Amino acid sequence: TEDEQLSDIAWSLFSHRGKLIRPALVILSSGFHPAAAGQVTALAAAVEMLHTATLVHDDLIDSASLRRGAPTLNSQWNHSIAVLIGDYLFSRAAALAAETGNIRVVNIFSQTLTIICDGELRQHFNREQLPYSVDDYYRRIFAKTAALFAAATEAGAILSNAPQSEIQALRDYGHNVGLAFQIVDDVLDLVGDEDKMGKPAGSDLRQRIITLPMLYFLSQGSDPTVIRRVIDEGHRDTASVQAAINAIRASGAIEAALAEARRFSQYAQEALQTLPVNQNRQILSDLADFIIKRDY
Amino acid sequence: TEDEQLSDIAWSLFSHRGKLIRPALVILSSGFHPAAAGQVTALAAAVEMLHTATLVHDDLIDSASLRRGAPTLNSQWNHSIAVLIGDYLFSRAAALAAETGNIRVVNIFSQTLTIICDGELRQHFNREQLPYSVDDYYRRIFAKTAALFAAATEAGAILSNAPQSEIQALRDYGHNVGLAFQIVDDVLDLVGDEDKMGKPAGSDLRQRIITLPMLYFLSQGSDPTVIRRVIDEGHRDTASVQAAINAIRASGAIEAALAEARRFSQYAQEALQTLPVNQNRQILSDLADFIIKRDY
Repeated sequence: TEDEQLSDIAWSLFSHRGKLIRPALVILSSGFHPAAAGQVTALAAAVEMLHTATLVHDDLIDSASLRRGAPTLNSQWNHSIAVLIGDYLFSRAAALAAETGNIRVVNIFSQTLTIICDGELRQHFNREQLPYSVDDYYRRIFAKTAALFAAATEAGAILSNAPQSEIQALRDYGHNVGLAFQIVDDVLDLVGDEDKMGKPAGSDLRQRIITLPMLYFLSQGSDPTVIRRVIDEGHRDTASVQAAINAIRASGAIEAALAEARRFSQYAQEALQTLPVNQNRQILSDLADFIIKRDY
Repeated sequence: TEDEQLSDIAWSLFSHRGKLIRPALVILSSGFHPAAAGQVTALAAAVEMLHTATLVHDDLIDSASLRRGAPTLNSQWNHSIAVLIGDYLFSRAAALAAETGNIRVVNIFSQTLTIICDGELRQHFNREQLPYSVDDYYRRIFAKTAALFAAATEAGAILSNAPQSEIQALRDYGHNVGLAFQIVDDVLDLVGDEDKMGKPAGSDLRQRIITLPMLYFLSQGSDPTVIRRVIDEGHRDTASVQAAINAIRASGAIEAALAEARRFSQYAQEALQTLPVNQNRQILSDLADFIIKRDY
């Protein structure tokens, strides 16, 4: 773009890029059979663009000030810019998905977008409500993360004209990796290193988002007061949040959540077993391993 | 939806519906050759849904309190709800467009979405800058209005498998009707009846959006002080805005802008000449006539 302000914004968005796992999933999943590079690149870009769009609007809604170690658009610029840039990224993502020329891929992509937006709406309306079940949690993280992971691997496979059994296997892989990824993300929010994550710890608690370690903590019969103080009563001060984090860490709930993440990573590995043996399969397997061992 | 809050929001959005011109354009343009009703309905819904999504985010950015005579989402609920509902409507619009199963239509739709978002961004960055040319104005209203009108008629024709010459004629029709429609909208913002429009008069001036009557006023050699006071200096009080409106109304600039709208309506009528003579063509012709005579 020629516009100087827009260039600054694009730079601040894409110079602090994330791990690029979603586009990697597209590219790896399309590599079991010959695929047109142009289509794969368009889809990979569409998926990352869509992900970035949701982050921009999420940060705006959560009034987050840091993302990937850099100021968010809403903090550095203003609310209107964050709304408009997010919309623009959504529109570019849709146009890139359409560039694949594959209507099945476009359908998956747009349905996934609806799942994500629907999940955001539900999360917003239900944020402050306990009780909250493990089922509620999985429904939310499917919409938030696993749906796009599954769409990335499924659509990547479709672009390579893979047989339906492989498309389904890659979708299962993406779905399970996505669930594992989000559980680890939620664990890291409680135990991670702020410098490595690029955002403050305990932000889920502060935003009254209930995650798996919290549910395990509550289900163990531990005294729920410290968590209820933050989630139900809305005490967002550092001492209250830190007390909740300490109680969860001391309870074994972190380990229980990580065991669950390992279970999904294992399911993802099993889904790969039906695919042709090649380098892509090895990298996908390594990726399923990496996402449960990462510390950022 | 089962959620009570969401039902309330959907009700408040769609019970105060607009004129439904965009879905009408889709349906009428698809009617020159046999078309699948399911595809046409999906596209018509997609186009209106996209339009509604842009209104929701526009009202949020402009902090508008009234739309179609009813409170806006941002005023009745809050900013987060307006961001999320707008995103949800975008996603549903994309999914509905994909439901046509026609990749050419999906491409037109997603490219139009990008044109609209790009236009919004440019408008936001350039809002307060004079000089502003007639070319700048037409570029903005193409992105804001005519692009979606043209996409609606073009894509409607594509769904009926019309020959390319008719697709182009209907696109030209939509484009010109869209330009005429927006010019009249901008005129009504200065001279319209608030009750009929469902929003306060002079909102463009208040938001420092420069429209065709203002440009004609400035180009006539009239004393620009009253307009510059609002646009350049940002005086948004009722007296300053009313003084600008009165000066524009007294200058003949309103009539000059309306003559321009009539010119585009005439171009639209001419584009229809190459199409088969039938009831749809007559209604499209009447529509091109109606939009320059409307007072709301």
